[in-house]
Amino acid sequence: MTTQKLITQIKKKKSFLCIGLDVDLNKIPKHLLKESDPIFEFNKAIIDATHHLCVAYKPNTAFYEAYGIKGWKALEKTINYLNDKYPEIFTIADAKRGDIGNTSSMYAKAFFEDLAFDSVTVAPYMGKDSVEPFLAFENKHTILLALTSNQGAFDFQTKEIDGKEVYKHVLETSKTWKNSENLMYVVGATKAEFLADIRNIIPDSFLLVPGVGAQGGNLQDVCRFGMNDNVGLLINSSRGIIYASNKTNFAEAATEKAEALQKEMALILE
Amino acid sequence: MTTQKLITQIKKKKSFLCIGLDVDLNKIPKHLLKESDPIFEFNKAIIDATHHLCVAYKPNTAFYEAYGIKGWKALEKTINYLNDKYPEIFTIADAKRGDIGNTSSMYAKAFFEDLAFDSVTVAPYMGKDSVEPFLAFENKHTILLALTSNQGAFDFQTKEIDGKEVYKHVLETSKTWKNSENLMYVVGATKAEFLADIRNIIPDSFLLVPGVGAQGGNLQDVCRFGMNDNVGLLINSSRGIIYASNKTNFAEAATEKAEALQKEMALILE
Repeated sequence: MTTQKLITQIKKKKSFLCIGLDVDLNKIPKHLLKESDPIFEFNKAIIDATHHLCVAYKPNTAFYEAYGIKGWKALEKTINYLNDKYPEIFTIADAKRGDIGNTSSMYAKAFFEDLAFDSVTVAPYMGKDSVEPFLAFENKHTILLALTSNQGAFDFQTKEIDGKEVYKHVLETSKTWKNSENLMYVVGATKAEFLADIRNIIPDSFLLVPGVGAQGGNLQDVCRFGMNDNVGLLINSSRGIIYASNKTNFAEAATEKAEALQKEMALILE
Repeated sequence: MTTQKLITQIKKKKSFLCIGLDVDLNKIPKHLLKESDPIFEFNKAIIDATHHLCVAYKPNTAFYEAYGIKGWKALEKTINYLNDKYPEIFTIADAKRGDIGNTSSMYAKAFFEDLAFDSVTVAPYMGKDSVEPFLAFENKHTILLALTSNQGAFDFQTKEIDGKEVYKHVLETSKTWKNSENLMYVVGATKAEFLADIRNIIPDSFLLVPGVGAQGGNLQDVCRFGMNDNVGLLINSSRGIIYASNKTNFAEAATEKAEALQKEMALILE
Protein backbone atom coordinates (compact mmCIF):
# COMPACT_ATOMS: atom_id res chain seq x y z
CA MET A 1 0.00 0.00 0.00
CA THR A 2 1.25 3.50 -0.78
CA THR A 3 1.57 6.04 2.03
CA GLN A 4 -0.85 8.26 0.11
CA LYS A 5 -3.52 5.56 0.20
CA LEU A 6 -3.06 5.22 3.97
CA ILE A 7 -3.45 9.00 4.40
CA THR A 8 -6.60 8.96 2.26
CA GLN A 9 -8.10 6.23 4.46
CA ILE A 10 -7.27 8.16 7.62
CA LYS A 11 -9.06 11.25 6.31
CA LYS A 12 -12.04 9.26 5.04
CA LYS A 13 -12.56 7.29 8.24
CA LYS A 14 -11.51 10.16 10.53
CA SER A 15 -9.41 7.61 12.33
CA PHE A 16 -5.74 6.79 12.76
CA LEU A 17 -6.44 3.82 14.97
CA CYS A 18 -4.49 0.59 14.65
CA ILE A 19 -5.85 -2.47 16.45
CA GLY A 20 -3.34 -4.97 17.79
CA LEU A 21 -4.36 -8.60 17.29
CA ASP A 22 -2.41 -10.18 20.17
CA VAL A 23 -4.51 -13.28 20.62
CA ASP A 24 -3.97 -15.27 23.79
CA LEU A 25 -6.13 -18.41 24.09
CA ASN A 26 -6.30 -17.85 27.84
CA LYS A 27 -8.00 -14.50 27.34
CA ILE A 28 -10.49 -14.99 24.53
CA PRO A 29 -14.13 -15.94 25.21
CA LYS A 30 -14.41 -19.57 26.29
CA HIS A 31 -17.13 -20.42 23.74
CA LEU A 32 -14.63 -19.88 20.88
CA LEU A 33 -12.33 -22.64 22.11
CA LYS A 34 -14.60 -25.31 20.60
CA GLU A 35 -13.99 -23.89 17.09
CA SER A 36 -11.40 -25.66 14.92
CA ASP A 37 -9.36 -22.42 14.70
CA PRO A 38 -10.30 -20.27 17.71
CA ILE A 39 -7.55 -17.69 17.03
CA PHE A 40 -8.79 -16.98 13.52
CA GLU A 41 -12.46 -16.99 14.56
CA PHE A 42 -11.65 -14.45 17.26
CA ASN A 43 -9.72 -12.23 14.81
CA LYS A 44 -12.44 -12.47 12.17
CA ALA A 45 -15.11 -11.39 14.63
CA ILE A 46 -12.97 -8.51 15.94
CA ILE A 47 -12.11 -7.36 12.40
CA ASP A 48 -15.71 -7.51 11.18
CA ALA A 49 -16.81 -5.51 14.22
CA THR A 50 -14.13 -2.79 14.05
CA HIS A 51 -12.83 -2.40 10.46
CA HIS A 52 -14.90 0.76 9.85
CA LEU A 53 -13.36 2.44 12.90
CA CYS A 54 -9.67 1.80 12.28
CA VAL A 55 -7.18 2.03 9.41
CA ALA A 56 -4.74 -0.71 10.43
CA TYR A 57 -4.44 -4.08 12.14
CA LYS A 58 -1.28 -5.29 13.79
CA PRO A 59 -0.97 -8.99 14.67
CA ASN A 60 2.00 -9.54 16.96
CA THR A 61 3.73 -12.64 15.60
CA ALA A 62 4.80 -13.88 19.06
CA PHE A 63 1.21 -14.73 19.93
CA TYR A 64 0.93 -16.92 16.82
CA GLU A 65 4.36 -18.57 17.03
CA ALA A 66 3.61 -19.61 20.60
CA TYR A 67 0.99 -22.01 19.16
CA GLY A 68 3.33 -23.49 16.56
CA ILE A 69 2.00 -24.49 13.14
CA LYS A 70 -1.59 -23.99 14.32
CA GLY A 71 -0.67 -20.42 15.22
CA TRP A 72 1.17 -19.73 11.96
CA LYS A 73 -1.88 -21.01 10.04
CA ALA A 74 -4.13 -18.66 12.02
CA LEU A 75 -1.79 -15.77 11.17
CA GLU A 76 -1.89 -16.70 7.49
CA LYS A 77 -5.69 -16.94 7.49
CA THR A 78 -5.93 -13.58 9.28
CA ILE A 79 -3.77 -11.68 6.78
CA ASN A 80 -5.52 -13.37 3.85
CA TYR A 81 -8.91 -12.45 5.29
CA LEU A 82 -7.81 -8.83 5.70
CA ASN A 83 -6.33 -8.61 2.20
CA ASP A 84 -9.34 -10.25 0.57
CA LYS A 85 -12.21 -8.64 2.43
CA TYR A 86 -10.78 -5.29 3.54
CA PRO A 87 -8.03 -4.35 1.04
CA GLU A 88 -8.18 -0.70 2.16
CA ILE A 89 -6.76 -1.70 5.56
CA PHE A 90 -3.03 -1.18 6.28
CA THR A 91 -1.53 -4.35 7.74
CA ILE A 92 1.42 -4.55 10.13
CA ALA A 93 3.33 -7.71 11.04
CA ASP A 94 4.63 -6.80 14.49
CA ALA A 95 7.58 -9.17 14.29
CA LYS A 96 10.56 -7.07 15.46
CA ARG A 97 12.91 -8.93 13.14
CA GLY A 98 16.43 -8.01 11.97
CA ASP A 99 19.53 -10.01 11.02
CA ILE A 100 22.50 -9.85 8.62
CA GLY A 101 21.67 -8.95 5.03
CA ASN A 102 20.88 -12.27 3.37
CA THR A 103 18.87 -13.33 6.42
CA SER A 104 16.86 -10.10 6.61
CA SER A 105 16.03 -10.69 2.93
CA MET A 106 14.42 -13.98 3.94
CA TYR A 107 12.41 -12.26 6.68
CA ALA A 108 11.28 -9.62 4.19
CA LYS A 109 10.20 -12.39 1.81
CA ALA A 110 8.30 -14.08 4.68
CA PHE A 111 6.28 -11.01 5.64
CA PHE A 112 5.98 -9.05 2.37
CA GLU A 113 5.60 -11.92 -0.10
CA ASP A 114 4.55 -15.14 1.61
CA LEU A 115 2.17 -13.43 4.07
CA ALA A 116 1.63 -10.22 2.02
CA PHE A 117 1.66 -7.73 4.88
CA ASP A 118 2.02 -4.02 4.02
CA SER A 119 4.62 -3.52 6.71
CA VAL A 120 6.79 -5.19 9.34
CA THR A 121 8.43 -3.94 12.53
CA VAL A 122 12.25 -4.25 12.60
CA ALA A 123 14.84 -3.84 15.39
CA PRO A 124 17.75 -1.47 14.61
CA TYR A 125 20.56 -3.00 16.69
CA MET A 126 22.36 -4.65 13.76
CA GLY A 127 22.39 -1.47 11.67
CA LYS A 128 22.10 -0.54 8.01
CA ASP A 129 22.62 -3.85 6.22
CA SER A 130 20.12 -5.55 8.53
CA VAL A 131 17.35 -3.09 7.60
CA GLU A 132 17.96 -2.20 3.93
CA PRO A 133 16.76 -5.60 2.60
CA PHE A 134 13.30 -4.75 4.00
CA LEU A 135 13.42 -1.24 2.49
CA ALA A 136 14.01 -2.63 -1.00
CA PHE A 137 10.34 -3.62 -1.39
CA GLU A 138 8.26 -1.02 -3.24
CA ASN A 139 5.10 0.14 -1.45
CA LYS A 140 6.02 -1.93 1.57
CA HIS A 141 6.94 -0.24 4.83
CA THR A 142 9.59 -0.98 7.44
CA ILE A 143 8.63 0.22 10.90
CA LEU A 144 11.89 0.67 12.79
CA LEU A 145 12.00 0.50 16.59
CA ALA A 146 13.17 3.88 17.84
CA LEU A 147 11.80 4.56 21.32
CA THR A 148 9.71 1.76 22.75
CA SER A 149 7.03 2.08 25.43
CA ASN A 150 8.43 -0.38 27.97
CA GLN A 151 10.57 0.27 31.04
CA GLY A 152 13.56 -1.38 29.36
CA ALA A 153 13.64 1.48 26.83
CA PHE A 154 15.69 3.33 29.46
CA ASP A 155 18.40 0.64 29.52
CA PHE A 156 19.95 1.56 26.18
CA GLN A 157 17.63 3.65 23.96
CA THR A 158 17.76 6.80 26.07
CA LYS A 159 21.47 6.62 26.91
CA GLU A 160 23.55 9.30 25.20
CA ILE A 161 26.15 8.97 22.46
CA ASP A 162 27.98 12.27 21.95
CA GLY A 163 25.30 14.12 23.93
CA LYS A 164 22.40 12.63 21.98
CA GLU A 165 20.17 9.68 22.88
CA VAL A 166 20.68 6.35 21.13
CA TYR A 167 17.13 6.42 19.68
CA LYS A 168 17.86 9.80 18.06
CA HIS A 169 20.99 8.34 16.46
CA VAL A 170 18.77 5.54 15.14
CA LEU A 171 16.36 8.10 13.65
CA GLU A 172 19.11 10.21 12.09
CA THR A 173 21.24 7.36 10.80
CA SER A 174 18.28 5.51 9.30
CA LYS A 175 17.42 8.58 7.17
CA THR A 176 20.67 7.99 5.26
CA TRP A 177 19.80 4.40 4.30
CA LYS A 178 18.76 3.41 0.79
CA ASN A 179 14.99 3.70 0.19
CA SER A 180 14.57 5.39 3.57
CA GLU A 181 11.27 6.82 2.28
CA ASN A 182 9.87 3.37 3.11
CA LEU A 183 10.61 3.83 6.82
CA MET A 184 8.11 4.42 9.59
CA TYR A 185 9.06 4.36 13.30
CA VAL A 186 7.83 2.85 16.56
CA VAL A 187 7.65 5.59 19.20
CA GLY A 188 6.14 4.79 22.59
CA ALA A 189 3.35 7.00 23.86
CA THR A 190 4.54 6.95 27.45
CA LYS A 191 7.03 9.63 26.47
CA ALA A 192 4.75 12.05 24.56
CA GLU A 193 7.00 14.99 25.42
CA PHE A 194 9.85 13.38 23.45
CA LEU A 195 7.72 13.55 20.29
CA ALA A 196 8.52 17.22 19.63
CA ASP A 197 12.25 16.41 19.36
CA ILE A 198 11.48 13.35 17.27
CA ARG A 199 9.41 15.40 14.83
CA ASN A 200 12.38 17.76 14.36
CA ILE A 201 14.44 14.81 13.11
CA ILE A 202 11.76 13.03 11.06
CA PRO A 203 9.04 15.57 10.26
CA ASP A 204 7.37 13.57 7.49
CA SER A 205 7.50 9.92 8.61
CA PHE A 206 4.60 7.96 10.01
CA LEU A 207 4.94 6.96 13.66
CA LEU A 208 3.40 3.80 15.07
CA VAL A 209 2.55 4.64 18.67
CA PRO A 210 1.86 1.82 21.10
CA GLY A 211 1.04 2.36 24.72
CA VAL A 212 -1.99 4.65 24.55
CA GLY A 213 -4.33 3.33 27.22
CA ALA A 214 -2.99 0.18 28.88
CA GLN A 215 0.59 1.47 28.99
CA GLY A 216 -0.37 4.95 30.23
CA GLY A 217 -0.01 7.24 27.20
CA ASN A 218 -2.42 10.07 26.53
CA LEU A 219 -3.94 10.50 23.06
CA GLN A 220 -4.22 14.31 23.27
CA ASP A 221 -0.56 14.73 24.21
CA VAL A 222 0.64 12.33 21.54
CA CYS A 223 -1.28 14.26 18.88
CA ARG A 224 -0.16 17.67 20.12
CA PHE A 225 3.51 16.72 19.89
CA GLY A 226 3.48 14.06 17.19
CA MET A 227 0.96 14.96 14.48
CA ASN A 228 2.12 16.41 11.16
CA ASP A 229 0.29 17.82 8.11
CA ASN A 230 -0.54 14.30 6.89
CA VAL A 231 -1.53 13.18 10.40
CA GLY A 232 1.58 10.96 10.43
CA LEU A 233 0.39 8.83 13.33
CA LEU A 234 -0.96 5.35 13.80
CA ILE A 235 -2.10 4.89 17.39
CA ASN A 236 -2.21 1.28 18.46
CA SER A 237 -4.51 -0.24 21.02
CA SER A 238 -4.56 -3.99 21.60
CA ARG A 239 -5.84 -5.37 24.89
CA GLY A 240 -8.09 -2.36 25.61
CA ILE A 241 -10.16 -3.19 22.53
CA ILE A 242 -9.90 -6.91 21.83
CA TYR A 243 -10.35 -7.97 25.45
CA ALA A 244 -13.05 -5.41 26.31
CA SER A 245 -15.23 -8.42 27.17
CA ASN A 246 -14.55 -12.13 27.41
CA LYS A 247 -18.24 -13.00 27.07
CA THR A 248 -20.25 -13.79 23.91
CA ASN A 249 -20.65 -10.02 23.40
CA PHE A 250 -16.87 -9.54 22.94
CA ALA A 251 -17.18 -8.20 19.38
CA GLU A 252 -19.80 -5.58 20.32
CA ALA A 253 -17.67 -4.57 23.31
CA ALA A 254 -14.69 -4.16 20.96
CA THR A 255 -16.78 -1.98 18.65
CA GLU A 256 -17.68 0.26 21.58
CA LYS A 257 -14.09 0.69 22.72
CA ALA A 258 -12.82 1.28 19.18
CA GLU A 259 -15.61 3.76 18.52
CA ALA A 260 -14.75 5.76 21.63
CA LEU A 261 -11.16 6.11 20.41
CA GLN A 262 -12.26 6.87 16.84
CA LYS A 263 -14.56 9.65 18.04
CA GLU A 264 -11.77 11.18 20.06
CA MET A 265 -9.58 11.03 16.94
CA ALA A 266 -12.29 12.60 14.75
CA LEU A 267 -12.50 15.54 17.17
CA ILE A 268 -8.73 16.01 17.06
CA LEU A 269 -8.71 15.88 13.25
CA GLU A 270 -11.34 18.62 12.98
CA MET B 1 20.39 -28.71 28.58
CA THR B 2 22.69 -27.65 31.42
CA THR B 3 25.86 -25.71 30.62
CA GLN B 4 27.83 -28.51 32.27
CA LYS B 5 26.42 -31.06 29.82
CA LEU B 6 27.43 -28.81 26.92
CA ILE B 7 30.97 -28.53 28.31
CA THR B 8 31.15 -32.31 28.72
CA GLN B 9 30.15 -32.81 25.09
CA ILE B 10 32.76 -30.30 23.91
CA LYS B 11 35.49 -32.17 25.77
CA LYS B 12 34.28 -35.59 24.63
CA LYS B 13 34.00 -34.65 20.96
CA LYS B 14 37.02 -32.30 21.01
CA SER B 15 34.83 -29.87 19.16
CA PHE B 16 33.07 -26.59 19.84
CA LEU B 17 31.60 -26.41 16.37
CA CYS B 18 28.04 -25.23 15.76
CA ILE B 19 26.55 -25.84 12.33
CA GLY B 20 24.08 -23.28 11.00
CA LEU B 21 21.11 -24.80 9.20
CA ASP B 22 20.21 -21.85 6.94
CA VAL B 23 18.42 -23.77 4.23
CA ASP B 24 17.75 -21.95 0.98
CA LEU B 25 15.87 -24.00 -1.64
CA ASN B 26 17.86 -22.22 -4.37
CA LYS B 27 21.12 -23.58 -2.96
CA ILE B 28 20.42 -27.18 -1.98
CA PRO B 29 21.05 -30.07 -4.38
CA LYS B 30 18.43 -30.18 -7.14
CA HIS B 31 17.62 -33.87 -6.61
CA LEU B 32 16.16 -33.08 -3.16
CA LEU B 33 13.51 -30.79 -4.61
CA LYS B 34 11.38 -33.77 -5.62
CA GLU B 35 11.02 -34.84 -1.96
CA SER B 36 7.81 -33.88 -0.14
CA ASP B 37 9.85 -31.87 2.40
CA PRO B 38 13.18 -30.95 0.78
CA ILE B 39 14.23 -28.64 3.65
CA PHE B 40 13.89 -31.38 6.26
CA GLU B 41 15.48 -34.03 4.02
CA PHE B 42 18.45 -31.72 3.50
CA ASN B 43 18.78 -31.02 7.24
CA LYS B 44 18.45 -34.70 8.13
CA ALA B 45 21.24 -35.67 5.73
CA ILE B 46 23.50 -32.87 6.97
CA ILE B 47 22.84 -33.76 10.62
CA ASP B 48 23.43 -37.48 10.12
CA ALA B 49 26.70 -36.70 8.32
CA THR B 50 28.08 -34.19 10.83
CA HIS B 51 26.59 -34.82 14.31
CA HIS B 52 29.77 -36.58 15.57
CA LEU B 53 31.89 -33.55 14.62
CA CYS B 54 29.88 -30.74 16.21
CA VAL B 55 28.15 -30.00 19.51
CA ALA B 56 25.37 -27.69 18.31
CA TYR B 57 23.03 -26.94 15.40
CA LYS B 58 21.58 -23.51 14.75
CA PRO B 59 18.64 -23.23 12.35
CA ASN B 60 18.07 -19.59 11.45
CA THR B 61 14.31 -19.11 11.63
CA ALA B 62 14.22 -16.58 8.75
CA PHE B 63 15.02 -19.33 6.26
CA TYR B 64 12.02 -21.35 7.48
CA GLU B 65 9.54 -18.48 7.83
CA ALA B 66 10.27 -17.46 4.23
CA TYR B 67 8.52 -20.68 3.15
CA GLY B 68 5.47 -20.11 5.34
CA ILE B 69 3.72 -23.06 6.98
CA LYS B 70 5.79 -25.51 4.92
CA GLY B 71 8.92 -23.90 6.36
CA TRP B 72 7.64 -23.86 9.94
CA LYS B 73 6.79 -27.58 9.60
CA ALA B 74 10.33 -28.28 8.38
CA LEU B 75 11.70 -26.39 11.39
CA GLU B 76 9.51 -28.40 13.75
CA LYS B 77 10.57 -31.69 12.15
CA THR B 78 14.23 -30.64 12.34
CA ILE B 79 14.19 -29.83 16.06
CA ASN B 80 12.17 -32.98 16.82
CA TYR B 81 14.65 -35.08 14.85
CA LEU B 82 17.57 -33.55 16.76
CA ASN B 83 15.91 -33.98 20.16
CA ASP B 84 14.86 -37.58 19.45
CA LYS B 85 17.93 -38.93 17.69
CA TYR B 86 20.76 -36.78 19.05
CA PRO B 87 19.69 -35.56 22.52
CA GLU B 88 23.32 -34.76 23.41
CA ILE B 89 23.31 -31.94 20.81
CA PHE B 90 22.80 -28.33 21.95
CA THR B 91 20.14 -26.64 19.83
CA ILE B 92 19.92 -22.94 19.01
CA ALA B 93 16.92 -21.18 17.46
CA ASP B 94 18.60 -18.24 15.75
CA ALA B 95 15.52 -16.05 15.86
CA LYS B 96 16.79 -12.68 17.16
CA ARG B 97 13.51 -12.00 18.94
CA GLY B 98 12.71 -9.46 21.66
CA ASP B 99 9.60 -7.47 22.60
CA ILE B 100 7.81 -6.09 25.67
CA GLY B 101 7.49 -8.49 28.61
CA ASN B 102 4.23 -10.35 27.94
CA THR B 103 5.16 -10.69 24.27
CA SER B 104 8.68 -11.97 24.96
CA SER B 105 7.02 -14.57 27.19
CA MET B 106 5.10 -15.81 24.15
CA TYR B 107 8.32 -16.00 22.10
CA ALA B 108 9.99 -17.93 24.93
CA LYS B 109 7.05 -20.34 24.96
CA ALA B 110 7.33 -20.73 21.16
CA PHE B 111 11.02 -21.66 21.16
CA PHE B 112 11.53 -23.32 24.56
CA GLU B 113 8.23 -25.20 24.91
CA ASP B 114 6.46 -25.59 21.56
CA LEU B 115 9.68 -26.24 19.61
CA ALA B 116 11.83 -27.38 22.57
CA PHE B 117 15.08 -25.68 21.60
CA ASP B 118 17.82 -25.40 24.25
CA SER B 119 18.43 -21.75 23.42
CA VAL B 120 17.29 -18.77 21.38
CA THR B 121 19.06 -15.64 20.16
CA VAL B 122 17.56 -12.36 21.42
CA ALA B 123 18.13 -8.69 20.48
CA PRO B 124 18.92 -6.31 23.38
CA TYR B 125 17.48 -3.01 22.08
CA MET B 126 14.32 -3.10 24.25
CA GLY B 127 16.25 -3.79 27.46
CA LYS B 128 15.72 -5.75 30.65
CA ASP B 129 12.01 -6.55 30.60
CA SER B 130 12.26 -7.74 26.98
CA VAL B 131 14.94 -10.32 27.87
CA GLU B 132 14.07 -11.51 31.39
CA PRO B 133 11.03 -13.57 30.27
CA PHE B 134 13.45 -15.76 28.28
CA LEU B 135 15.84 -16.03 31.23
CA ALA B 136 13.10 -17.41 33.47
CA PHE B 137 13.31 -20.89 31.88
CA GLU B 138 15.52 -23.30 33.79
CA ASN B 139 18.26 -25.02 31.77
CA LYS B 140 17.34 -22.94 28.73
CA HIS B 141 19.75 -20.34 27.40
CA THR B 142 19.25 -16.86 26.03
CA ILE B 143 21.93 -15.83 23.57
CA LEU B 144 21.97 -12.03 23.58
CA LEU B 145 23.27 -10.07 20.59
CA ALA B 146 26.29 -8.07 21.76
CA LEU B 147 28.67 -7.45 18.86
CA THR B 148 27.48 -8.84 15.55
CA SER B 149 29.69 -9.79 12.60
CA ASN B 150 28.09 -7.57 9.94
CA GLN B 151 29.13 -4.13 8.70
CA GLY B 152 26.06 -2.57 10.35
CA ALA B 153 27.54 -3.46 13.76
CA PHE B 154 29.47 -0.19 13.44
CA ASP B 155 26.28 1.89 13.10
CA PHE B 156 25.27 1.66 16.76
CA GLN B 157 26.97 -1.22 18.62
CA THR B 158 30.47 0.28 18.61
CA LYS B 159 29.39 3.88 19.29
CA GLU B 160 30.36 5.10 22.76
CA ILE B 161 28.14 5.93 25.73
CA ASP B 162 30.20 7.61 28.49
CA GLY B 163 33.42 6.47 26.82
CA LYS B 164 32.35 2.86 26.48
CA GLU B 165 30.89 1.10 23.44
CA VAL B 166 27.18 0.28 23.35
CA TYR B 167 27.87 -3.46 23.14
CA LYS B 168 29.91 -3.28 26.36
CA HIS B 169 27.00 -1.56 28.07
CA VAL B 170 24.82 -4.41 26.84
CA LEU B 171 27.23 -6.96 28.35
CA GLU B 172 27.54 -5.14 31.68
CA THR B 173 23.89 -4.26 32.09
CA SER B 174 22.69 -7.75 31.19
CA LYS B 175 24.78 -9.21 34.02
CA THR B 176 22.48 -7.44 36.50
CA TRP B 177 19.30 -9.05 35.10
CA LYS B 178 17.42 -11.80 36.93
CA ASN B 179 18.68 -15.30 36.08
CA SER B 180 21.59 -13.81 34.13
CA GLU B 181 23.42 -17.14 34.56
CA ASN B 182 21.22 -18.30 31.66
CA LEU B 183 22.83 -15.77 29.31
CA MET B 184 25.21 -16.48 26.47
CA TYR B 185 26.29 -13.84 23.93
CA VAL B 186 26.66 -13.44 20.17
CA VAL B 187 30.10 -11.98 19.41
CA GLY B 188 31.21 -11.67 15.79
CA ALA B 189 34.53 -13.21 14.82
CA THR B 190 35.48 -10.40 12.46
CA LYS B 191 36.60 -8.46 15.53
CA ALA B 192 38.67 -11.10 17.33
CA GLU B 193 40.81 -8.45 19.00
CA PHE B 194 37.71 -7.16 20.83
CA LEU B 195 37.35 -10.53 22.56
CA ALA B 196 39.98 -9.77 25.20
CA ASP B 197 37.96 -6.79 26.44
CA ILE B 198 34.76 -8.81 26.25
CA ARG B 199 36.30 -11.58 28.38
CA ASN B 200 37.14 -9.00 31.04
CA ILE B 201 33.44 -8.18 31.35
CA ILE B 202 31.99 -11.69 31.02
CA PRO B 203 34.79 -14.15 31.86
CA ASP B 204 32.53 -17.18 32.37
CA SER B 205 29.79 -16.91 29.73
CA PHE B 206 29.57 -18.93 26.55
CA LEU B 207 30.04 -16.92 23.35
CA LEU B 208 28.36 -17.88 20.09
CA VAL B 209 30.76 -16.73 17.39
CA PRO B 210 29.49 -16.42 13.81
CA GLY B 211 31.64 -15.27 10.96
CA VAL B 212 34.54 -17.72 11.05
CA GLY B 213 35.18 -18.55 7.42
CA ALA B 214 32.68 -16.88 5.05
CA GLN B 215 32.66 -13.62 7.02
CA GLY B 216 36.44 -13.46 7.43
CA GLY B 217 37.13 -14.42 11.05
CA ASN B 218 40.11 -16.52 12.04
CA LEU B 219 39.64 -19.50 14.37
CA GLN B 220 43.09 -19.24 15.98
CA ASP B 221 42.61 -15.57 16.89
CA VAL B 222 39.12 -16.14 18.23
CA CYS B 223 40.38 -18.90 20.52
CA ARG B 224 43.45 -16.96 21.66
CA PHE B 225 41.32 -14.02 22.81
CA GLY B 226 37.98 -15.67 23.57
CA MET B 227 38.55 -19.07 25.16
CA ASN B 228 38.13 -19.58 28.90
CA ASP B 229 38.76 -22.52 31.25
CA ASN B 230 35.55 -24.22 30.13
CA VAL B 231 36.26 -23.45 26.46
CA GLY B 232 33.34 -21.00 26.55
CA LEU B 233 33.02 -20.81 22.77
CA LEU B 234 30.64 -22.10 20.15
CA ILE B 235 32.01 -21.35 16.71
CA ASN B 236 29.35 -21.30 14.03
CA SER B 237 29.79 -22.19 10.41
CA SER B 238 26.81 -22.34 8.06
CA ARG B 239 27.32 -21.96 4.32
CA GLY B 240 30.91 -23.21 4.37
CA ILE B 241 29.70 -26.61 5.57
CA ILE B 242 26.13 -27.14 4.38
CA TYR B 243 26.78 -25.84 0.85
CA ALA B 244 30.20 -27.46 0.42
CA SER B 245 28.67 -29.25 -2.59
CA ASN B 246 25.32 -28.95 -4.36
CA LYS B 247 25.66 -32.39 -5.96
CA THR B 248 24.44 -35.77 -4.66
CA ASN B 249 27.62 -35.96 -2.54
CA PHE B 250 26.60 -32.88 -0.48
CA ALA B 251 26.49 -34.77 2.83
CA GLU B 252 29.97 -36.26 2.38
CA ALA B 253 31.29 -32.84 1.38
CA ALA B 254 29.76 -31.40 4.55
CA THR B 255 31.45 -34.12 6.63
CA GLU B 256 34.81 -33.19 5.13
CA LYS B 257 34.42 -29.47 5.84
CA ALA B 258 33.15 -30.09 9.38
CA GLU B 259 35.95 -32.56 10.04
CA ALA B 260 38.58 -30.05 8.94
CA LEU B 261 37.23 -27.53 11.45
CA GLN B 262 36.85 -30.16 14.19
CA LYS B 263 40.48 -31.27 13.74
CA GLU B 264 41.66 -27.68 14.01
CA MET B 265 39.60 -27.37 17.20
CA ALA B 266 40.99 -30.63 18.63
CA LEU B 267 44.54 -29.28 18.15
CA ILE B 268 43.65 -26.05 19.91
CA LEU B 269 42.06 -27.94 22.82
CA GLU B 270 45.21 -30.04 23.38
